[in-house]
Amino acid sequence: MAQDKKLVEQITPMDVDFAQWYTDVVLKAELCDYSQVKGCMVYEPYGYAIWENIQSILDAKFKATGHENVYMPMFITESLLQKEKDHVEGFAPEVAWVTEGGGEKLTERMCVRPTSETLFCEHFSHVVKSYRDLPKLYNQWCSVVRWEKNTRPFLRTREFLWQEGHTLHATPEEAIEETERMLNIYADFHEHDLAIPVVKGRKTDSDKFAGAERTYCIEAMMHDGKSLQAGTSHYFGDGFSRAFGVQFTDKENKLVYPFQTSWGTTTRMIGGVIMTHGDDSGLVLPPAIAPIQIVIIPVAAHKPGVTEKAAELRDRLAKCYRVKLDDSDNSAGWKYAQYEMKGVPLRLEIGPRDIEANQCVIVSRLDRSKTVVPLDGLEAAVGEALETLRAGLYEKALANRERRTHACVTMDEIKQSLTDNGDGYIKAMWCGDEACEDKVKEETGVQSRCIPFAQETLSDVCVCCGRPAKKMVLWGKSY
Amino acid sequence: MAQDKKLVEQITPMDVDFAQWYTDVVLKAELCDYSQVKGCMVYEPYGYAIWENIQSILDAKFKATGHENVYMPMFITESLLQKEKDHVEGFAPEVAWVTEGGGEKLTERMCVRPTSETLFCEHFSHVVKSYRDLPKLYNQWCSVVRWEKNTRPFLRTREFLWQEGHTLHATPEEAIEETERMLNIYADFHEHDLAIPVVKGRKTDSDKFAGAERTYCIEAMMHDGKSLQAGTSHYFGDGFSRAFGVQFTDKENKLVYPFQTSWGTTTRMIGGVIMTHGDDSGLVLPPAIAPIQIVIIPVAAHKPGVTEKAAELRDRLAKCYRVKLDDSDNSAGWKYAQYEMKGVPLRLEIGPRDIEANQCVIVSRLDRSKTVVPLDGLEAAVGEALETLRAGLYEKALANRERRTHACVTMDEIKQSLTDNGDGYIKAMWCGDEACEDKVKEETGVQSRCIPFAQETLSDVCVCCGRPAKKMVLWGKSY
Repeated sequence: MAQDKKLVEQITPMDVDFAQWYTDVVLKAELCDYSQVKGCMVYEPYGYAIWENIQSILDAKFKATGHENVYMPMFITESLLQKEKDHVEGFAPEVAWVTEGGGEKLTERMCVRPTSETLFCEHFSHVVKSYRDLPKLYNQWCSVVRWEKNTRPFLRTREFLWQEGHTLHATPEEAIEETERMLNIYADFHEHDLAIPVVKGRKTDSDKFAGAERTYCIEAMMHDGKSLQAGTSHYFGDGFSRAFGVQFTDKENKLVYPFQTSWGTTTRMIGGVIMTHGDDSGLVLPPAIAPIQIVIIPVAAHKPGVTEKAAELRDRLAKCYRVKLDDSDNSAGWKYAQYEMKGVPLRLEIGPRDIEANQCVIVSRLDRSKTVVPLDGLEAAVGEALETLRAGLYEKALANRERRTHACVTMDEIKQSLTDNGDGYIKAMWCGDEACEDKVKEETGVQSRCIPFAQETLSDVCVCCGRPAKKMVLWGKSY
Repeated sequence: MAQDKKLVEQITPMDVDFAQWYTDVVLKAELCDYSQVKGCMVYEPYGYAIWENIQSILDAKFKATGHENVYMPMFITESLLQKEKDHVEGFAPEVAWVTEGGGEKLTERMCVRPTSETLFCEHFSHVVKSYRDLPKLYNQWCSVVRWEKNTRPFLRTREFLWQEGHTLHATPEEAIEETERMLNIYADFHEHDLAIPVVKGRKTDSDKFAGAERTYCIEAMMHDGKSLQAGTSHYFGDGFSRAFGVQFTDKENKLVYPFQTSWGTTTRMIGGVIMTHGDDSGLVLPPAIAPIQIVIIPVAAHKPGVTEKAAELRDRLAKCYRVKLDDSDNSAGWKYAQYEMKGVPLRLEIGPRDIEANQCVIVSRLDRSKTVVPLDGLEAAVGEALETLRAGLYEKALANRERRTHACVTMDEIKQSLTDNGDGYIKAMWCGDEACEDKVKEETGVQSRCIPFAQETLSDVCVCCGRPAKKMVLWGKSY
């Protein structure tokens, strides 16, 4: 087990330096590599396979709810970007500009899309004429560019991969319903497939998407008590339609403006998975997105029949699961450490004595618990073990969040809680005034994450100013 | 049928103006829309769904041959682009440059990738150390940018979608084998799934990819006799490895350079499908990539039981095929024209008399042939009808190519053939001298498409200079 130990020692322990632990894990699990452009990363096969699994599940959910995939150009001319005032103010400072093409200076510079509302609106203005053309339920998978100052793999990169849904509706009610539907799809995906508990809520006005009337979000607490905004869904009203001249003839033959939404999730979800489930041995991947769900490791592989049996089990399990047989001549200890590092949910060990007893051993990545499983009915046992692991990951993450969530009714209580308990969520009442929001942040370091849909009444007054409270806000530090 | 006629009349007939026919089809079949940036197109749902089907088939073939997907950054710094001399000479004139980001002028400008050899090489230089790390078999799906002067939807756009494979091998033999393997995968995909016959061959040196030692290609003849380069596969030797300092320790513990390949296909394949199979009624899609493989149209839908039966058939067929039921109140004639325009391979008509006789009518998009099919065993009958259509498309395209291919042994014969027969392929012998290649192009208008793998000896001497011939070349006009 010497190699095993050595490999594990390469990761900085989480409690020593969480940021360094994160960097160690993404590099050593071979999720990504740095590139020659600061803030732009290389997705290596293992990291990209996680993204492909995420895409495959979400894409099916989008299509099942009637959405169609499209692809818009990656470039936005400056004049197009400027058509919606709030939108350009929000994004212009962080775009990358193309100024030359084909050896010539462009007559008008173009940015690489930071998001595609403007492109979708331009297209909608071409193709939407009548109420019969609505709703338009579009999604695209692509990469976008935001020229961030501080970057970290998956969490904040200058180029990142995402999906962006853009929909157009005849009525505000329909558009709001869509905004909520997609937020719920994101929440369900996180809670079930990623085993990450989330808080669903609405952003305060100061934290809305540039150009939106409402921004909904899901917030997930990471292992260290900080919050990750894991998905957003925006309701635009008819602001973009008016700015881009998108109109349709309604059933009464009147020319009117449609109502719009957009919603997105990104590769930062992978960062969320790492920081929610990972431990000092490396990654822990929820089964739904794990590139390898179960790794088979033959024990005493030189003994007759062992590798053959292992291959037979691989072939059986490959019909239902993503399975890998490692029959290389690396030591068992090295293999254990390697696949723990890579977060493979289950390890199946099979040796001569197991074969004799028509059984194998399954080890869970969650807690290294070992289960002896009869080979008859192995498929079902693996399925159960994966679901047990998934549920265990969720429970562990939920327990972390609950342990780190504290209700406070005064500013002093917030400060005391952060001192006593470290980073986490603070639940506190708010009057709705942006000045109080700013003051809480300035004095305590936590900022508004969202106004949770699940409201509680902790007191009647704002935690900051003492005036009547309008909403309970979830506060925290963010990634 | 008044509406039917009207709809069809909107398409310019192929023989009147092939280019206009093409534009009419891509727009009226709702494959794409123009955008605010010249040469960048919007892929609408129907067009993008074709691409998704292409991706899904090719991706499975790549994975089955051991390739892994990755994602590289979209930006290449100028200094990285310049590392391989031939490569930068080939691509620098047609790139788009990003010169500002986050409100500041960049210290070094970056281009949007026109292709990613340089990015893969940089990454390989980080991760390849030993012969145990080889081969690296990578692929990525992304968009690339080449600032072309003349653009046409799908065929030549400034941004286009593609896949680019990049592999690294210990020996030249392995790398050449890979180059050929991927060309064969492209050829099989075209011949079987797209029903497009292709000529496999090698590009002459003047037509190689920038930086390659060898470029293999598949060439497909379009309906109008012009040729489309539909896929390429390049062998680089160790040129890029040397330029980027990619080295590995071989089994003899020597530090040596690995050998590299790349290979790509793009959304221009969709243009190829349109121009190979389309007709004056619109698109004709091969079943493998058709977003709708069979459309069900109820006849006399107001009669009791018709829409119910149609829905029942839809549910049955949806288990095996991509099927759509159109029970809208548009006229049958309008629907016939609409789905012909969209190239749906099969139309299933079902009315009261069919229901009584427990049968339906299947109409092929290939030739409008009608077949009465018993409802028992409908699934198998649909499968056979799709395969008959696919084979028919292939035969038709092959017949077009054969009719338009002519062997010539003198320059005068080439000119005469082009005058007599119009555009098409000319087979003619070549001495291997670039001057003769240029002269053929200059004097006759056709240029070298490739040196086919399937060689013939038409004469002993070069068609141009009369010196001894080395190879038979396929000449033609190209898209």
